[in-house]
Amino acid sequence: MKKMEHIGIAVKDLMVSNLVFEKLLGTTPYKQEIVVSEGVKTSFFKTGTTKIELLEATNQDSPIAKFIAKKGEGMHHIAFEVEDILEEIIRLTKEGFVVLNEIPKQGADNKLVVFLHPKDTNGVLIELCQEIK
Amino acid sequence: MKKMEHIGIAVKDLMVSNLVFEKLLGTTPYKQEIVVSEGVKTSFFKTGTTKIELLEATNQDSPIAKFIAKKGEGMHHIAFEVEDILEEIIRLTKEGFVVLNEIPKQGADNKLVVFLHPKDTNGVLIELCQEIK
Repeated sequence: MKKMEHIGIAVKDLMVSNLVFEKLLGTTPYKQEIVVSEGVKTSFFKTGTTKIELLEATNQDSPIAKFIAKKGEGMHHIAFEVEDILEEIIRLTKEGFVVLNEIPKQGADNKLVVFLHPKDTNGVLIELCQEIK
Repeated sequence: MKKMEHIGIAVKDLMVSNLVFEKLLGTTPYKQEIVVSEGVKTSFFKTGTTKIELLEATNQDSPIAKFIAKKGEGMHHIAFEVEDILEEIIRLTKEGFVVLNEIPKQGADNKLVVFLHPKDTNGVLIELCQEIK
């Protein structure tokens, strides 16, 4: 693992939450992006070398819509940057973690991503991400 | 806000979770600490310039015990480092955020800390922390 890349926060209304985090962090989002395959629109704030990603569902089948229906708004995942996502999948599977999608998929912010099952990680949804070059 | 300082994760058994995060992150905790006033024992992992803090309750009145009873294990708070915690309290109060403890208290890792009410921040408990010099 290279570093913590970002924290994902599930929100109901991205426009409203952008304003909240602008006030909190004293900075505006440096990027906004729609990820059609995941059913989300997102915005990113820089906080040192790490980022805050706000996520709003764009449809009711989105993982973010389901998360909010079950748990309400709040912290959704922690993402760690890796050098080689395929190597990390092999390493973590050997260590007993369950990878939710064994084939990395394209996520926001020009990344390949996989998720680990939160049952193995104290209820925390972990994302691994690798920059697409 | 200078940077994201750490992410706090509420766990039931620190010894067990230390092993999980050692496997996940490929590193051991660089520090373990008991904060009597907060009723927690904690361990810290470095992840780039940010940290993961695991927190186990040491008694049933601990905020961590109450959190786990209500929501289960999982992400508990995001902490941001600030230059001057008193100035930030004034700034954020003017912006409409509710500070849970207006007088900063001593937290783990040699820090003065305050918390913001999560009702104003999309259900996310935000900690501000300033290094004690």
